[in-house]
Parts: sequence; structure tokens; C-alpha cells
Amino acid sequence: MVDLRSDTVTRPSEAMRRAMAEAEVGDDVYEEDPSVRALEERVAELFGHEAALFVPSGTMGNQIGMRLVCEPGQEILCDADAHVVTYEMGAAAAIFGISTRTVVSAGGRLDAQQLIDQVRPKDNWHLTATAAVAVENSHNRGGGLVQPLGELQELWNWSREAGVAVHLDGARIWNAAVASGTELSTYGRLADTASVCFSKGLGTPVGSVLVSSAERIATARLWRKRLGGGMRQVGVLAAACTYALENNLPRLAEDHEHAQLLAKRLGVDPSTVETNMVVLDDVPAPMLAEAAKAQGVLVSQVSARKIRLVTHLDVDRAGIDRAADVLAELLAR
Amino acid sequence: MVDLRSDTVTRPSEAMRRAMAEAEVGDDVYEEDPSVRALEERVAELFGHEAALFVPSGTMGNQIGMRLVCEPGQEILCDADAHVVTYEMGAAAAIFGISTRTVVSAGGRLDAQQLIDQVRPKDNWHLTATAAVAVENSHNRGGGLVQPLGELQELWNWSREAGVAVHLDGARIWNAAVASGTELSTYGRLADTASVCFSKGLGTPVGSVLVSSAERIATARLWRKRLGGGMRQVGVLAAACTYALENNLPRLAEDHEHAQLLAKRLGVDPSTVETNMVVLDDVPAPMLAEAAKAQGVLVSQVSARKIRLVTHLDVDRAGIDRAADVLAELLAR
Amino acid sequence: MVDLRSDTVTRPSEAMRRAMAEAEVGDDVYEEDPSVRALEERVAELFGHEAALFVPSGTMGNQIGMRLVCEPGQEILCDADAHVVTYEMGAAAAIFGISTRTVVSAGGRLDAQQLIDQVRPKDNWHLTATAAVAVENSHNRGGGLVQPLGELQELWNWSREAGVAVHLDGARIWNAAVASGTELSTYGRLADTASVCFSKGLGTPVGSVLVSSAERIATARLWRKRLGGGMRQVGVLAAACTYALENNLPRLAEDHEHAQLLAKRLGVDPSTVETNMVVLDDVPAPMLAEAAKAQGVLVSQVSARKIRLVTHLDVDRAGIDRAADVLAELLAR
Amino acid sequence: MVDLRSDTVTRPSEAMRRAMAEAEVGDDVYEEDPSVRALEERVAELFGHEAALFVPSGTMGNQIGMRLVCEPGQEILCDADAHVVTYEMGAAAAIFGISTRTVVSAGGRLDAQQLIDQVRPKDNWHLTATAAVAVENSHNRGGGLVQPLGELQELWNWSREAGVAVHLDGARIWNAAVASGTELSTYGRLADTASVCFSKGLGTPVGSVLVSSAERIATARLWRKRLGGGMRQVGVLAAACTYALENNLPRLAEDHEHAQLLAKRLGVDPSTVETNMVVLDDVPAPMLAEAAKAQGVLVSQVSARKIRLVTHLDVDRAGIDRAADVLAELLAR
Repeated sequence: MVDLRSDTVTRPSEAMRRAMAEAEVGDDVYEEDPSVRALEERVAELFGHEAALFVPSGTMGNQIGMRLVCEPGQEILCDADAHVVTYEMGAAAAIFGISTRTVVSAGGRLDAQQLIDQVRPKDNWHLTATAAVAVENSHNRGGGLVQPLGELQELWNWSREAGVAVHLDGARIWNAAVASGTELSTYGRLADTASVCFSKGLGTPVGSVLVSSAERIATARLWRKRLGGGMRQVGVLAAACTYALENNLPRLAEDHEHAQLLAKRLGVDPSTVETNMVVLDDVPAPMLAEAAKAQGVLVSQVSARKIRLVTHLDVDRAGIDRAADVLAELLAR
Repeated sequence: MVDLRSDTVTRPSEAMRRAMAEAEVGDDVYEEDPSVRALEERVAELFGHEAALFVPSGTMGNQIGMRLVCEPGQEILCDADAHVVTYEMGAAAAIFGISTRTVVSAGGRLDAQQLIDQVRPKDNWHLTATAAVAVENSHNRGGGLVQPLGELQELWNWSREAGVAVHLDGARIWNAAVASGTELSTYGRLADTASVCFSKGLGTPVGSVLVSSAERIATARLWRKRLGGGMRQVGVLAAACTYALENNLPRLAEDHEHAQLLAKRLGVDPSTVETNMVVLDDVPAPMLAEAAKAQGVLVSQVSARKIRLVTHLDVDRAGIDRAADVLAELLAR
Repeated sequence: MVDLRSDTVTRPSEAMRRAMAEAEVGDDVYEEDPSVRALEERVAELFGHEAALFVPSGTMGNQIGMRLVCEPGQEILCDADAHVVTYEMGAAAAIFGISTRTVVSAGGRLDAQQLIDQVRPKDNWHLTATAAVAVENSHNRGGGLVQPLGELQELWNWSREAGVAVHLDGARIWNAAVASGTELSTYGRLADTASVCFSKGLGTPVGSVLVSSAERIATARLWRKRLGGGMRQVGVLAAACTYALENNLPRLAEDHEHAQLLAKRLGVDPSTVETNMVVLDDVPAPMLAEAAKAQGVLVSQVSARKIRLVTHLDVDRAGIDRAADVLAELLAR
Repeated sequence: MVDLRSDTVTRPSEAMRRAMAEAEVGDDVYEEDPSVRALEERVAELFGHEAALFVPSGTMGNQIGMRLVCEPGQEILCDADAHVVTYEMGAAAAIFGISTRTVVSAGGRLDAQQLIDQVRPKDNWHLTATAAVAVENSHNRGGGLVQPLGELQELWNWSREAGVAVHLDGARIWNAAVASGTELSTYGRLADTASVCFSKGLGTPVGSVLVSSAERIATARLWRKRLGGGMRQVGVLAAACTYALENNLPRLAEDHEHAQLLAKRLGVDPSTVETNMVVLDDVPAPMLAEAAKAQGVLVSQVSARKIRLVTHLDVDRAGIDRAADVLAELLAR
């Protein structure tokens, strides 16, 4: 099977499993796990923040990150296709009492001014106050697009004046950084809180890290415990993340090349493919997915007329070629 | 002063105050207030529902109404300009854990298919399930527009198949009914829950009523107590509502005529004025409001370039003429 | 009928209704109702606080008051029989995410040290932090007992050191003040937030007032709107409260005498009757209540073996005598 | 160091790490991880329930378990020293809007009738309805005591009549079962929902499992995602749990013997030591803990006068002897 449904399906390699098996561990609820602490320090530094916290999922990283900058009764503004309002089960409202409000952007691409225009003041006795905006980079439902640095910068500069916070959903920030040549710390410094994920393109089984100021991360630690995200000898997972940073980060460029290859083979404009995702628009999605599966290629149906292909470290060049052959033939029918 | 800021500013008339002073009352937390019970029964019947509950505000009526048809973690879909997501302080998320998601409609006018297309299924492990849609009629930020009956009917028919509930924010349903000649019960029967308000065009000091099935209203009573909306000898307020039903409902036609008059005098296309609101677009709102106030006319600034005028029973024909004179002259400058 | 179930059943007198009918009113959501503002200023001053807010019920006053001094995830400590954890429908948890934890006191009487011993620190990563304690005075389920001033003072002094807030559920603080000869401001100054109620012994149909600092009350105003407690020309209710302060406050002494009379006639130790409640212990409550009702006397069943009688301004001396006759005869059987 | 602070500090053995490194894994959010599914099926069967769900912590297992049987606004009744109200950060209220109410039991030991007497009805318009009771077995703050089977049975029988659910916090149910010779399925069948933990005496790095009916577990899966507990190739952790069931469960008897040894050496009545915990009462806890640490023995301070020792698979007989020597000498001073 060539599994292009998502980069979440990657399995840990032998070497990564070895790193896990050899990890030095302790009780992380007591803050005594050396592998976790090392990872947290490293990630905080990579993104130019004071502190970091290991969490079991990107959803927990995003939700706690947003809670750190938004009180119950206030709202967070984001794109209508953002992961935080689409795939996180209404968590902001359900567990934190935070409203989410959305703008419809051009395919997920950040338009700073569009968000700024929607912000509501904090001192109005009728309106829900806008406490923060959330930005996703790269943007999953936007087909892996990389947010323009200029827009991020404009939003950030404005936010300092306006007293509105910025949360970065950086589940695939690694892809954005590799594709655009932007430093992780550059992205990190344009956000008050950021959640970054290791179980997507980086290939670890489990794990995300939330970065922010030391004070906010101390609060985040309490919320993680409250949500049931406090784990014990979790260095076994953190060790995989450290391994991935050292070994799987640079190779994301290969996934991006594979996506370009797929695009070319399948008649998708390669300029629309910015990282590791290829979107097939206006196709009979259920039928195509079914037929591809029958030939050993798994793809993801985003809607009735849209298919998404995601390249990752468990699909090599041969797999890409095979998927291209199968899909090209099916599309040609 | 001619106060056209809102129809919420109406003061109880002498006759209404007399009805309040003579109201028979009891302890409504014990369900022993005859004036409240009579009102609740009457309103339930008017809207073709089994039961009703008096609540202190339209916000409480809407929020409890939505809670009755949506569980924490699920979402309610509505127009981006709906009162429930604009002027109710993020209550759905804050107090009930309910997500709200919005579509941008044409000036607030319901397009049933547009909402239907956005509904998310209940059995998906990633997506927030859409439990209900909320419709506002007449639509406040839509300039008092009346929702098309055909669209309401289409939404309702679809909703029965889809297992999605419909909540009606009927704060100004009275205006919609009078303007369109539609029965209140016709509107009522196209909703699972509806909140209707007496302290707007009907001119009472306080009070809204939530209607639904007997079972849901029993649950609503518990939520009302929990939110602090359980009151004692509240028949003094309910009596004003009964008075308003008998005396102030038919006269809303007069407010609508006044709005037409204002529109004509101020160069607003009268066909855009469907009930008791007139919107002045592309005007220097703060300056105009300030200048009008100096001449004894109060208006509402919706945004930097938009003014809203609302007619109601405390502004008679003379007041309308005076406001028209003042505003026309200011607009002419 | 002589209704001794509760002091909430009082109906507004003719004079009070007249005060309501003549009240000067405005739109209180716009903070323009002069009767409401006058009442809020007066109550704030009476209790020695900066500001006050009119709310529709004691439940809303208590719950918002507690929210002002406790964040979601933290806890409030109180007596196991406190109104806030017994009769308010789990609101603290349900709408604010606040945990309540209780101590079993001697019949509701405050033992400051007992509460202090239970307080949990704010910086522990396992324990729920105790942000505030709530005290009820007079204590409803404690049979109307008046909290010892020395204990209130000890709790307050300790709380300033400990960084823990104090909320006063002063639904019947009027009875406590009249019975003990303590100034309202003395009680008020021993609390960060206090909710006081006008629809119990003071005899108004509806209304409570929350007092605190100006900053906290500004926040409370937002929460009141969010919970659906923002009302319009609510001066009609506030006028009744002002009337009650001027006319019904001193006469509470009469209710207390009536309670003494009942106690003596019914064999209850008069020293256990501190305000306007008499508790009959170890009686067959359902049977007694039923039999009394058949003879025109309504009483409240607290449990299977406990009856509560509450005196108030709608039961005069003759009513008390009649109730005593009926109940004494039934008890004698 | 001999670490007797908690059985959570255990580190995975070489063999357990090997099982983890060799685990077959898949994407568990897509329900495709064979190691997770195998574990869930096995645990469900062990406890006599239809289904099970792997969660990252005991806190998440307990909180979701309680949410499955209690709606926002309702309450759960438990012991005042229960883990769910002491060490879980107020999660029930904070994330689910559930009130917790407690009874003070004799050192944590379940007295079914005491709980039953406190239950409040579901149809009262004043009282918070009691939807469930939670029982902890063995009881952490009760010094590892095993709940009497007769009381569990009485509670269960009553609960079926009363329509009140039972949640079992079985973090250390393994110890209870081994110590009392009771089947896990016997305990499991006396609860509607149960959370059992693998990272305590069973020695895995991370992991708890929630068991209940198939329908409830389907709902639990949505809440797990919403709370951020949905993880990907989490079979690496589940494999450790399966290993522990096969290898570390029977050996808990050894930990219990070690606890008996410690009790005898330290003058604690051995009959008070029912599983793997020894409590030293009336000792100068901070001083004793400090002095023991200086000699290489770590203990846990429960309060200023109370020390807790917990035996587990990372402390062998020699370690127990050494700890006993050090502590006995310090106590003798």
C-alpha cells in the first residue's frame, strides 16, 4: 500500500524506535524526565521563546495555546478553514468557553488586513471581545500553502499596538520553514504562543510541543494536567521527537519534491503545490479514492469533488511513481 | 429628544404601568404566578407550541433556546451578522460550551441552501457536529429585513430529514409578522425553539418568552434557574407583556409607515426598508450622530460609515418629521 | 391561607406598587435608568463598597460575585449547607467552570479556622487552588442563624494575608443586621463581593444587588449581559427595592418577634431562633405539612423529619397566632 | 536512591522497552493501531465490559468516564479524599461543567449508605441533581485501602433502582484485586464506567484505559479527541501495557509484602496496610523527608504530620531493607 492520506500515518523507523528504547526517563508530572526537559528546552530555543511544554497532540497544543491568550467569554479570530475550528471538535468553546469567529480567506492564505478589520474591541458591553487571532502555517485545508512572511509580520506589528495576541498553529511549520527557507525562530517570534507537531512530517508516533513565555508555560502545565495530558515516563516519546529534529527535518525537502512530481504527473499546476500536499480539484472523489485503493494507493477525500495527497517519509520515490501511475491512469478515464 | 437609537428605549405608558400595578402575582419560582402562567400559555398558543417560559431578556431566551437543541461540543450555524453571535457576548461558548459557526449571507437574508451546504455530520470523529441552525427574523443588523417564508420553509423541511434543529431568534418577529402578513404561528411552526421579545417594539420594560415543546421547556426552566433568571413575583412584568400583546402589536404597522417616511425624506430606497429600521449607508457616522444629537435627535452608529434609525411607539409622527428635518438638513451639507 | 413556606412569597403592597408605577425609567443596558442607578449607588454606599449592580436574582448575584474572585479551574470553599451549593443548580461549575468544595460545620455556623484549614495553595500542580471562600449570613439551611462577627473578622483578616477572597451571600443580610444590631457596612467591609436580595424579607417582587469594587462591577456588568441578566426599563423593579429599603427594613424586627412567638408556642428553644425562621426537628414532615395545609397553614418541608417556618411581612400577628394554634394542636397529637 | 514517593516513578524495564520497540503500530486516530486495539479489547474483557479506550492519563480516564454518566449542571458524589476531587485540578467543573460534592468517610472507606443518603433527586427545580457516584479502589489518600466488596455491591444494587450511575476510579484496581483475591471482572461489573491505570504499580511509562458500554466508549472517543488525547502510533505505549498485564500484574503481591515489611519495621499496625502503601502518622513530615533524602530514601509528604511510602517494582527487597533501616533510625531519634 502507498498511503498518501496524511503525513500522520508515518510509522517510527528502526532507528527512531532504538532512540526511544534507550531514552533516559523520569516522572514528567514531577518534572523529572530528562528527555522531555531536553526536548522542551531545544524547541523553545528553536522558536525563540522562553519555554516549552510537551503535549500528547496538536489539538491539545493548539487549544491550551489559545486558552493562554484568551479568556472564557472572549473570542479568537481565524480562517474559516483553519484546523482549530474544523478538526478540533469545537474544543475552544466546549472546554474553555472561548468563541471562535472566522473569515473566509482566499484558500486559507493569510490576509492580515482582513483579520484586523474584523477585530472587536475589549470594552464594549454588547460585543464579544477579540482577544487573539490564530494563524495556521503551513495551512492544511489550504493544500499545504505557506503563509506570506510579510502578512505575518504585518499582523504581528499591528497586534502589538492593538493588544491582541497571535497564536500559531504550527503543526506543519517545519514544512513551511523548509519550503520557504525561513528560520523557525523567525516564525516563532511572530507569535505569542505556538504549537508545533512531531507526528506529522517529522514521523514520530506521538507528540506536540507548545512554546511561549515562561509564565504562560507554567499556566499551560496546569491546564495540561487538568485536561489529562500529564504523563509519566514520557521521555520515550520525547526521545523520538529529538531524533526527528536531528534526522527528519532536513529531509522534508524530499517530500516537497515528491509532491511536485505528483503534481506534474497528475496535471496539477505545480505552483499551487508549496509543500507536501497535492489537491485534485473537480474530481469524483469517492469513486477515485475507491478505485485507487483497489490498486494499492490510499488518498484522502476532502469533499465530494476534492482529493488530497500528502507525501511523507514512509513513501519513497518508487511509491510516488506507483501512485502517480495509478492515479494518472484513473484520471485519464 | 427624539430617540431613534433603538426600539429598546421605549418606556412603559401610563396604561401599561396601571396593568403592572394591578397584576395578580405569586412566587414564579414555585410556578404560582398567575400572570406569568397566563402569558406563557398565551404565547405558546400564538406560536403553535406546547409550552413557554418567561425569561428576563432576549439573550437568555436565545441562549437557553439554543442549548435545548445543541449539546456542549456541538455547533450552531447562523448568519455572520446574527444577534446571537454579535451582541450576546459569546454566551453560547462561554456558558454552554457550544461552538458557533457562521456564513456570510447577502445582508442577513436567509439562503437556506447556503446554510445546508455548511452543515457537518454528527458521526465524524474529527469535525464539530452541527446540531442546529439559528435564524433571526426580522434581522437586526440586516436593517430589519423580513426572512423569506419560502426559505424558512425549505430550511425546515430539510431539517426534519437531516436531524438538525432550527432555533428562531424572534426578538422582532412581531415586526416581521405585521409587515408580511404572516401568522405568528406560521413562523412558530417552522422552528423547534423560538425566543420572542416584548421590550422592543411592543414597548414593555422587560421580558422575553421562549417557546418549544413541553419537555424542552421543563429543561429550560432548570437552565433559567441555573443562569439566575428565576424570579419571584414577576407577574408585574408579565402583565405588561400581556398588555402589549393586546394593545401594541397591531400598531407596529404605524412604526413601519414611519420608517417609510424617514426613508423617503432621507433618500433611502424605500424598498430596502421592510419593517421599523432605516439604514443610512456611506455617511460620516460619528459626525452625523453628534450633530443630530445637538439638535435633539438620537441615532445609532452601526459602524464608521453606517447609521441606523429605529422607529417605535415612543416616537410619534411629529417626532418622525422633526428627525427627518434635522437629518435631511445634515445630510444635505 | 397563612403562608410560612418562605419569605420569598411576599407580594408587593399597594404602596410599593405605586412606587413602581411612578418610577422614572430608562434603558438600563445603556446605563440610562435613573431608578436603577440610584439604587445601585445607595446599596454600594450602605455596604461600604465602590459600586453595585442590579441583577434579576440572588442566584445571579452570588454566581457572578463568585466568578469575580475565582477563575475557571479554581475552587471556592463553603459550608456544605450553603445556598450557593445547595439551591443554585450547580451553576458555579456549569456556567463558570468553578469547583465548589465544602466543609461540614455545626449547623451552618461559620468556624473560620475550619475553612482556613481546608484552603489549598495556588501554586501546586496537582491540587485545585482555593481562590475564595463563600459565607452565608443569615444562613438559610442553618435556620436563619446569624454568623458570629468575630469569626467573620478572623476570616477576613486571614484572607488578606492569604490572598484568598471572601464572597458574602447576603440574601438575608438584612435580617442578620437587624437581629444583631450590626451595621450593613460592617458586614460589607468583611467581603470582597456581596450579593444582597430584596425579594425575601424586604418584600419586593424581584431583585438582588451585587456590590464590590468599581473594577469588578464593570466586569460583572459584562457577565450579567452574557448570562442574560441585562434588562431594559428595569427601574420599575429597582423602585420597589428603594421603597423597601426605606419602609420594610426596620420592620424586620417584627418578623423576628413573630418567629420567637412561634417558637414558644411550638416548644422550640427560642435561643435557637435568631431571625425569622423556626425549625421543627424530628417531626413527621410530610404528614404535618399536609395536615396544616388542610387547615390553611402552609409550611416548608426541609426533609422527611424537618419543617421550616419563615415569618415575613405578609403574615401579621393574627396570622402567626392562627398558625401557632393549628401547628401546636397538630404537634400535640 | 530508594524512591518510595509513588508507584508512578517506575521506569520501563529492558524487556518492556523491547516490547515497545517491536510493537506493530498504525494511526490510532483512524482506529488503525493493532496494538492499541488488542489492548482495548483485552482490558474490556478483563473487566467484563463491552468496549475500552486508551487514554494518556488516569485523569483523562476518570474525567471522561464521569462525563459519560453526568451532564453539565448535574453533580457527582464521592469521598472528600477521592483522587478525582483532590488531584485532578478541578477538571470536572472546569472542562465539563459538572459539580462534585463530597462526603467525609472513615479514612476513604466506602460506606454505601452514607453516599446514598446524600443523593439528590433529578426532578427538583432547586437542587443540583446527583447523576453519579465515584468510588476509588484501592484508595490513594486512604493509604491504599481496598473497598469492601459488600459495600460496592450494595451501592451497585441501589444504583440500578435509583437511576444513578457508578464510576470506578480504578487507578490501582490491580492492587485491590491482588490483595483481596477478587476478580477484575467482579469489580468491573459493579461500575458503569471504570478507568484503570498502567503507569502506577504495573510499571508502564504512560497509559490508562477507560472501559464501559460500546455506545459510551464511542462518545468517549469524541471527548478524547476534543481534550487533545487522540494520538497517532500510540501502539508503542499500548504494547507496554499489554506487556505489563502479562508480566507485572501477579508480582504486585511482592509490593504488598514489602509494604508489610516496612510497616512492621516502622511500628505501623500491619492490619492498616492493605496494599502497597504505608502511612506514617504524627511524624514531623518535612524534617523526616529531608533527613531520609539525605540518606538516599525518598518519601512523600501528604501533610505536615503525615508521610506516605509506596512500594513498587523498581524497589526490591534490598531497597526496602535499606529504607526501613534509614527510616527506623530517624523515627527512633
